[in-house]
Amino acid sequence: MESFLKNLYIGHWTDKDNHTGCTVFVTPEGAVGGVDVRGAAPGTRETDLLRPGNLVERVHAVVLSGGSAFGLEAACGVMDCLADRGIGLDVGVARVPIVPSAVLFDLADGSSVFPKKEAGYAACAEALDGREPPAWGRVGAGAGATVGKILGMEHCMKGGIGCSCAELPGGATVLAFAAVNALGDVLDENGSILAGARKEDGSFADTQRLLMDGWLSRPLAGTNTTLGLVVTDAAMDKAQANRLASLAHDGYARSIRPVHTQNDGDTIFALSCGVKQVDFMTLCAAAAEAMAEAVRKAVTEGDRS
Amino acid sequence: MESFLKNLYIGHWTDKDNHTGCTVFVTPEGAVGGVDVRGAAPGTRETDLLRPGNLVERVHAVVLSGGSAFGLEAACGVMDCLADRGIGLDVGVARVPIVPSAVLFDLADGSSVFPKKEAGYAACAEALDGREPPAWGRVGAGAGATVGKILGMEHCMKGGIGCSCAELPGGATVLAFAAVNALGDVLDENGSILAGARKEDGSFADTQRLLMDGWLSRPLAGTNTTLGLVVTDAAMDKAQANRLASLAHDGYARSIRPVHTQNDGDTIFALSCGVKQVDFMTLCAAAAEAMAEAVRKAVTEGDRS
Repeated sequence: MESFLKNLYIGHWTDKDNHTGCTVFVTPEGAVGGVDVRGAAPGTRETDLLRPGNLVERVHAVVLSGGSAFGLEAACGVMDCLADRGIGLDVGVARVPIVPSAVLFDLADGSSVFPKKEAGYAACAEALDGREPPAWGRVGAGAGATVGKILGMEHCMKGGIGCSCAELPGGATVLAFAAVNALGDVLDENGSILAGARKEDGSFADTQRLLMDGWLSRPLAGTNTTLGLVVTDAAMDKAQANRLASLAHDGYARSIRPVHTQNDGDTIFALSCGVKQVDFMTLCAAAAEAMAEAVRKAVTEGDRS
Repeated sequence: MESFLKNLYIGHWTDKDNHTGCTVFVTPEGAVGGVDVRGAAPGTRETDLLRPGNLVERVHAVVLSGGSAFGLEAACGVMDCLADRGIGLDVGVARVPIVPSAVLFDLADGSSVFPKKEAGYAACAEALDGREPPAWGRVGAGAGATVGKILGMEHCMKGGIGCSCAELPGGATVLAFAAVNALGDVLDENGSILAGARKEDGSFADTQRLLMDGWLSRPLAGTNTTLGLVVTDAAMDKAQANRLASLAHDGYARSIRPVHTQNDGDTIFALSCGVKQVDFMTLCAAAAEAMAEAVRKAVTEGDRS
């Protein structure tokens, strides 16, 4: 990662043997948050409170996790870890950490292996105590991610989690993170396939063309999703944070084809943990491009094992 | 409860000592589901997938829980219990139970006591294995509920969880359940206060009048919420289930004043687990009245200890 924003701590929990994990983004002082759930097969928690107009303005962590809906449990461990450190919304008798989360499907064999409470706790502790910058690739929420599953699992490729950074005029920064487990293929800047469904001979099948040629897609329900997060130290209100999350989905559209399908749970969160002044249109345009780049890096860079 | 619908199983977990608990509504064969999150301080999970157009059509359980956002953990235990029994969405390598949930605030002293995984598991097992019809009142999600907190906790009254039933033309039924932890007062059919904020002399303060007289409400963030569920054996599609959840909020409006405030997380789920044919307008009108009655029963009937 090129730069760290103040007040953003990142930790992974990775199960290399079982190809699953979770990634926690902690903003101990609270970050203004928004979300856009654009895929049709989402698995989420604490997204309703992010709606503009609703009471809670700040979130203390965002959790991206494997494990399908089971993996929503990781956020419970993150809540415990944050509560143990006195981080959360002050409600008098306690501090309640606000921890939105979304999950992707990486279940390989039954429903017993997924990021549990302990995994979320460990990832959160790693975020707050870790001395090393986080790794990327097939770690955390990207550890079991795959892309290009329209021809079945035996024809897909490894996904992962990636990070990209854009410096904005005036000195603000926007970071984009993507855990890519898409039904579609991942494209480079020129529209060529970087990763996706492969034919027997190893060449790319081109998922979009298969669909247009009448290939009847029968992917298993809810087995695909790209999870994203954009974080900036530019000032935003909650309505803008929701809008930024929406715009960042354009980064998915440019880097994944097809995307936002009935079998993807594509979700992007947005956080502001700073007060720098940036033109909002510029911020959104930068976030979309950073997100596209994060998607590409997720399938090409970092730990590929 | 006057009648049970086929394919609906209800279980509570109650911690009488610490005044918290959760209530699980299990539909093992799957029920068409919808939701309307109308309060401004919600705590929820798996609500995004209920949006019309999204992939998943059927849910396997709905969890209403105390514990504020910590109580979202109860749904993880419900998922485990359902997975252990082979109940869930078939995704090939596993069955993933679809378990939407919403929570209310009943934290009394710190963040360590709330319905955890084990509580959700126990409530789900009770639902599926229990031989007794469920009790109502200060049990399950209603165990720590209170109403009328605008003057502070020392002036509020006990809430609870209630159930009401309406028989529809043609033999269908709609059940309404409400766990009432409202900021406002609960009203009877004539608009008189049944339960709510009380003055020193024990008479009702009338929360609405206090606000209109300029009382500056400073309730602690997110400490109020009325959670509801309507279940019918009438056929509905997913869009209708969402619409039914919306209409049921009229039952809140008629029985709680004020309601849907910035400090309430008012949420209602709707489920169809039958195929009976009923005029949809009739169903919605009945559900709203049943919900109002369930709210009143929550603060007056059943176990009041």
